[in-house]
Amino acid sequence: MLGNFTFENPTRLHFGENSLEHLKEELALYGKTVMLSYGGGSIKRTGLYDQVVNVLHEAGKTIVEDSGVMPNPTVEKLYEGCKLARENNVDLILAVGGGSVCDYAKGVAASAWLDGDPWQTYYLDYKDPEPSLRLLPVGCILTMVGTGSEMNGGSVITNHKQNLKIGKVFDSRLMPKFTILNPKLTYTVPQYQMVAGFFDIMSHLMEQYFSNEDDSTSDYLNEGLMRSLIHSSRIAVKKPQDYEARSNIMWTATWALNTLVGKGKRQDWMVHMIGQAIGAVTDATHGMTLAAVTIPYYKYIMHCGLHQFVRFAKNVWNVCPDGKTDEQVALEGLNALEGWMKEIGVAMNAAEVGVTPENIGQVADATILGGGFMQLTRDDIVEILRRAL
Amino acid sequence: MLGNFTFENPTRLHFGENSLEHLKEELALYGKTVMLSYGGGSIKRTGLYDQVVNVLHEAGKTIVEDSGVMPNPTVEKLYEGCKLARENNVDLILAVGGGSVCDYAKGVAASAWLDGDPWQTYYLDYKDPEPSLRLLPVGCILTMVGTGSEMNGGSVITNHKQNLKIGKVFDSRLMPKFTILNPKLTYTVPQYQMVAGFFDIMSHLMEQYFSNEDDSTSDYLNEGLMRSLIHSSRIAVKKPQDYEARSNIMWTATWALNTLVGKGKRQDWMVHMIGQAIGAVTDATHGMTLAAVTIPYYKYIMHCGLHQFVRFAKNVWNVCPDGKTDEQVALEGLNALEGWMKEIGVAMNAAEVGVTPENIGQVADATILGGGFMQLTRDDIVEILRRAL
Repeated sequence: MLGNFTFENPTRLHFGENSLEHLKEELALYGKTVMLSYGGGSIKRTGLYDQVVNVLHEAGKTIVEDSGVMPNPTVEKLYEGCKLARENNVDLILAVGGGSVCDYAKGVAASAWLDGDPWQTYYLDYKDPEPSLRLLPVGCILTMVGTGSEMNGGSVITNHKQNLKIGKVFDSRLMPKFTILNPKLTYTVPQYQMVAGFFDIMSHLMEQYFSNEDDSTSDYLNEGLMRSLIHSSRIAVKKPQDYEARSNIMWTATWALNTLVGKGKRQDWMVHMIGQAIGAVTDATHGMTLAAVTIPYYKYIMHCGLHQFVRFAKNVWNVCPDGKTDEQVALEGLNALEGWMKEIGVAMNAAEVGVTPENIGQVADATILGGGFMQLTRDDIVEILRRAL
Repeated sequence: MLGNFTFENPTRLHFGENSLEHLKEELALYGKTVMLSYGGGSIKRTGLYDQVVNVLHEAGKTIVEDSGVMPNPTVEKLYEGCKLARENNVDLILAVGGGSVCDYAKGVAASAWLDGDPWQTYYLDYKDPEPSLRLLPVGCILTMVGTGSEMNGGSVITNHKQNLKIGKVFDSRLMPKFTILNPKLTYTVPQYQMVAGFFDIMSHLMEQYFSNEDDSTSDYLNEGLMRSLIHSSRIAVKKPQDYEARSNIMWTATWALNTLVGKGKRQDWMVHMIGQAIGAVTDATHGMTLAAVTIPYYKYIMHCGLHQFVRFAKNVWNVCPDGKTDEQVALEGLNALEGWMKEIGVAMNAAEVGVTPENIGQVADATILGGGFMQLTRDDIVEILRRAL
């Protein structure tokens, strides 16, 4: 059954190869000063930067340059962005890039006019912005899929000094006001990053799927998205410029983490918790840190929620259950998942993402504990990481 | 592949058995005068009317009573509602009831301040409201599932004099601002209406599914919703107060027609076009008019989109394709659909919804022509209706 919830998602999405044409009409809804947030040089190399700047100029905007948003945005960069936004009294933050840039933009949007330390307030204390606080609107032009940040309130920030990488989920006030999704903008992402993004999507889906005892429409929607992703990712790794595959993956990524498939359910985000802890210690690519611990993690908790692993095997991987025990069916499902992971080329062990016997303890210390079918202790995390090596 | 589109859905949904508790916080966002639109006496019998009126009084609102919204809201009732809303200068229309009440409320919201005839402007000429026109906000408390009207811009109005029943789809400005979904409020709907609603949901899903040649995430989501509906409806017809089944069906209905599963696709709404024509002529229950023509219609067009009927059979009904021709697989899928329809108890022929050899021509005349895999002529409609008798 579905538990009680509120669903609300005000982000307007423009999808398709010509979707940048909608930028001008969106810009018209905001004031003169736009903070243009992006990462390194990739959007300059591809020409996207020039395209966006041209539209901003045509729309008569003043641009506040905010480059250098790193793949795992740091708390220092967050502080810098807040200062920039406040000093220039910006009217809109336009994030151009992947999920990291979008995550960062939401952090700045919530914090620019906050009196107090945003790291402490939002990420450590997990408070919501006061109703009276001025929040800046965010728009997003996505160049890499995976995080789902383009249609949710999520914002992951890394604090290297504290060895912490924490995801805050803001409410709908901080979801992007608009997002431009052009599958072709994702063509230039290197294969490693592209595949990491694919796995990030799958992990979002699985982490919302592996929980609950009962029958829920959310799981049926989730299975549909997983099946679409598996189908299209197999095509995209061989032919990255296959528009059909890339467009389906882009849309799947958005719906994998805009709250829909988690509605009315408990969720189990431990793969992300462990993956983010690895990221905080080793700065490895997010999706790959998830992949590295996925199989050991799910094998570790499988006996606590066997029915759902059986369902996963049958409905997502078409495992035939005839003449098999539930445990055999469930394991066959996880083996099929493992086979797909090898096929698309993700990290298959934790060593690949920088985990060593020496830093396992540090990663375990950085892991925020929790669970779904099974509540995990620090000892469990150490054991899962050991098996993942 | 996914075609180009914009997705936007600002409706905030409160879901669950206690969701009425959110009404007061929603009312606080609007002015003093609330038009309370509802149907006949059913919400008075169940006590819902008193509950809602109490909340309105607690919130200090002035109530403008607007009862008597009929199952197929008429253009005369629309005019009456517009006059009432304008004369009382209402700040919010609160629709309490099924899809018809919600459809009607959107029609009034768009038309109260329109200079000109709304039937002509919106329903016949299919124009959108001018940006400068004052539109009234709509809130919805749903008591019957099926139409999806609670989270979309749809508004179906019937003109008996012209023998026309036309659905206008307004843009996001006219989607409900908020909707309260409490599965328990649907328990008191009579079995016939409940089942008709279930079939309406299935028809919405199929009419968005049966189109296109290519691979689309929308179809995977759609299959998930169909599977969830089939599973839960089988439980609900035997045990109407099964909360798990009714909650899943309620949520499925919302997502079946809030634009998501149709994004990036062509769609084929001919079953609704024929069903609405039957409704205009015989005033039969909407969902039953759809059921009455579904099997003859899909058998009629099947050869034009065989691949999608094969996919439907395999992914929705688990038909095993081994050793069968595509046509056999496709037909087995439609037979499974027919079996499910009999199981839940919908109208299985057009005579049951008032179609006779004598009025077939009238129904065909009232049918707005179109199609998906196949473009239909008036002769095709007559032939489909003949086969449906």
